[in-house]
Amino acid sequence: MSKHDAVEVIHAKRDGHGLSDSQIDWVVDAYTRGDVADEQMAALAMAILLRGMDRGEISRWTQAMIASGERMDFSSLSRPTADKHSTGGVGDKITLPLAPLVAACGVAVPQLSGRGLGHTGGTLDKLEAIPGWQADLSNTALLEQLESIGAVICAAGSELAPADKKLYALRDVTGTVEAIPLIASSIMSKKIAEGTGALVLDVKVGTGAFMKSLADARELAETMVALGTDAGVATVALLTDMSTPLGLTAGNAIEVAESVDVLAGGGPSDVVELTLALAREMLAGAGVTDVDPADKLADGSAMDAWKAMIRAQGGDPDAALPQAKESHVVAAPTSGVLTRLDAMAVGMAAWRLGAGRARKEDPVQAGAGVVWHARPGDTVTEGQPLFTLLTDEPGRFDRALTSLEGGYDIAEGGSDFTADPLIIDRVG
Amino acid sequence: MSKHDAVEVIHAKRDGHGLSDSQIDWVVDAYTRGDVADEQMAALAMAILLRGMDRGEISRWTQAMIASGERMDFSSLSRPTADKHSTGGVGDKITLPLAPLVAACGVAVPQLSGRGLGHTGGTLDKLEAIPGWQADLSNTALLEQLESIGAVICAAGSELAPADKKLYALRDVTGTVEAIPLIASSIMSKKIAEGTGALVLDVKVGTGAFMKSLADARELAETMVALGTDAGVATVALLTDMSTPLGLTAGNAIEVAESVDVLAGGGPSDVVELTLALAREMLAGAGVTDVDPADKLADGSAMDAWKAMIRAQGGDPDAALPQAKESHVVAAPTSGVLTRLDAMAVGMAAWRLGAGRARKEDPVQAGAGVVWHARPGDTVTEGQPLFTLLTDEPGRFDRALTSLEGGYDIAEGGSDFTADPLIIDRVG
Repeated sequence: MSKHDAVEVIHAKRDGHGLSDSQIDWVVDAYTRGDVADEQMAALAMAILLRGMDRGEISRWTQAMIASGERMDFSSLSRPTADKHSTGGVGDKITLPLAPLVAACGVAVPQLSGRGLGHTGGTLDKLEAIPGWQADLSNTALLEQLESIGAVICAAGSELAPADKKLYALRDVTGTVEAIPLIASSIMSKKIAEGTGALVLDVKVGTGAFMKSLADARELAETMVALGTDAGVATVALLTDMSTPLGLTAGNAIEVAESVDVLAGGGPSDVVELTLALAREMLAGAGVTDVDPADKLADGSAMDAWKAMIRAQGGDPDAALPQAKESHVVAAPTSGVLTRLDAMAVGMAAWRLGAGRARKEDPVQAGAGVVWHARPGDTVTEGQPLFTLLTDEPGRFDRALTSLEGGYDIAEGGSDFTADPLIIDRVG
Repeated sequence: MSKHDAVEVIHAKRDGHGLSDSQIDWVVDAYTRGDVADEQMAALAMAILLRGMDRGEISRWTQAMIASGERMDFSSLSRPTADKHSTGGVGDKITLPLAPLVAACGVAVPQLSGRGLGHTGGTLDKLEAIPGWQADLSNTALLEQLESIGAVICAAGSELAPADKKLYALRDVTGTVEAIPLIASSIMSKKIAEGTGALVLDVKVGTGAFMKSLADARELAETMVALGTDAGVATVALLTDMSTPLGLTAGNAIEVAESVDVLAGGGPSDVVELTLALAREMLAGAGVTDVDPADKLADGSAMDAWKAMIRAQGGDPDAALPQAKESHVVAAPTSGVLTRLDAMAVGMAAWRLGAGRARKEDPVQAGAGVVWHARPGDTVTEGQPLFTLLTDEPGRFDRALTSLEGGYDIAEGGSDFTADPLIIDRVG
């Protein structure tokens, strides 16, 4: 006889009770081993979504998911470690300049990343636009690269939190993705198992984000910060706007190019602002307070770290990036001030152009995506290029154009426009 | 592209919206065909349990389950039809005397039944204690027997509401049994597909019933009566007590014997009262108002119908019934008035003695069960037999005795005891 059974655990949560430590340990382990069936975990996930879990339950659930697999250990490194996680946004290429920038400041960044699904792009998809670059690294190679270069962006191995991998795939098909306890424990189990010393969370809020309301985003941020802190990881979160897409590009190769602009000391001001804010939090979490990351962008050392990082994984940082075969320009229909550019509209357009995937097994186009030529607050003139759509398959333009319809506003007398702040709040 | 997808339907219910007719038709059909996976239906069932469904949704869900299979048609019979369904209780052998009694009054009773699972026995399990009796009948044989004898108790074929069969098995392992919309649609889809003209529901309430509270039982009864009425079936429900077990026996052969006592004009008064009350409702639903079923018990015609019904399915109504190999008597520990006899305690004891099954594939013992020698209100004397436990396997006595502990009260000065009414209310 096992200690618990699935129906007992489901009943407890369904009826609004807290799950005991023993129930949580048992159900996560039994699900990973296959003794609790997918349909049982699906019912439990729905009960958790609708009934919630308290902090103690979420913490135990996270620990149980960590215990389902291996934990990495970076204590042998000569420098402290810090990692960043974003809940996902449109044009969110921040990891690309951020990891080498923080490495250039003396803190090692083990950035274990995933591929994109849906309208938000994946970091690995973007880097794979660079000729020769490889996402997969052995643990030994990862440690060596962290020691020698200080920055690694690579695929998370399947040995980290396998319970989460299985549960995430299940939630995706059972309408149970949007449960804050399950989102928080999913993210944090992987990040804690990964062994980072400090963690900065970029929790997005707005139309293009997973969390549409500030209250939900704050609850998720507070939950994750508590989980990280409980596990001994110095954790803070920034709540940042994702109503407007980041930078001027959403795609793969075009976001790499924009990231290189930032590393070269240029780039869109919002990407620079968020990169520096997150870098300062990561450095502070790792105990490094005497370095200004802005200096490392200015003096070229962040760019050096980037090139070394790309080369160490087989990529050629100086090679030409892939370009889409076809392009289509959308002209501004009127003159005035661009007062709104909707992140979801842009993200859907980029996805439909081939930059993202609908199913895990789909390929992505390296050159596809959307470039926008104005940001909210900018003045535009009727007939000037407003968007450039890029794809290898011109049959995709129509649906992408449909996505952009109603996705922006141009005000003729828009002089009183003021932009919302990019960084809304800090939790930690 | 199909009209809907599972995640869309799950999201709608999860977020508290009503499901459209089209969503319900699609999801029930797609689940039956296997296009909606078990884990998706489990998440939806939990969302339905926690969010509820309105009358319109439950009605459509029921119609969709009926449409998943065949419908029977009794319109060729020379007499009207009426059926009874009990939500399940301890010692509930009422179907056995009721079906031949109503047949003897001129109304045909097509009683398609199931086997028991858990602490409430199954009608087919009870009848299978009769040597030679067979539960399985072809549709042709069923119609012939209804015409010639007027009463059939047999196994429900798999062609009736196959969606319900699949969904019920899923609910059983996913903690989603206790959802009134799903209970009501499960029962009513089978009963409507079965093609009865009138239906009487015996909705049990109390410790030994599925519904522990009168409010839940009433909601279930009202929901089912509305579903039946909407489908053109004359439907009423009686709310009846199941805090105390029915009659003096819980088991298989011993309940057959008690039923034969009732058909012979004797038997425990509560079994007789409920049998007559349900018979009168069935007759009224079928439009027969000029026959008093009590007369048919008294004049032996109900017994004649019973014997004919048993013989028609291969059974010998005059054969000796199987007896358990072992028995154990529990003596009254004190003298006084029995003020409480708990249906769940008795049901669990009978189940543990081998009268019921834990899993669908388990066998049951024909002779196993519990006989109680007093009912609430009766005076007992210290040392007199209070219970007789029956089983083929004496190793089962200990756990059965544990079930009975705390399952009854004897009050020394219990002269002011008054029994709760057996028939609590009528809905219809």
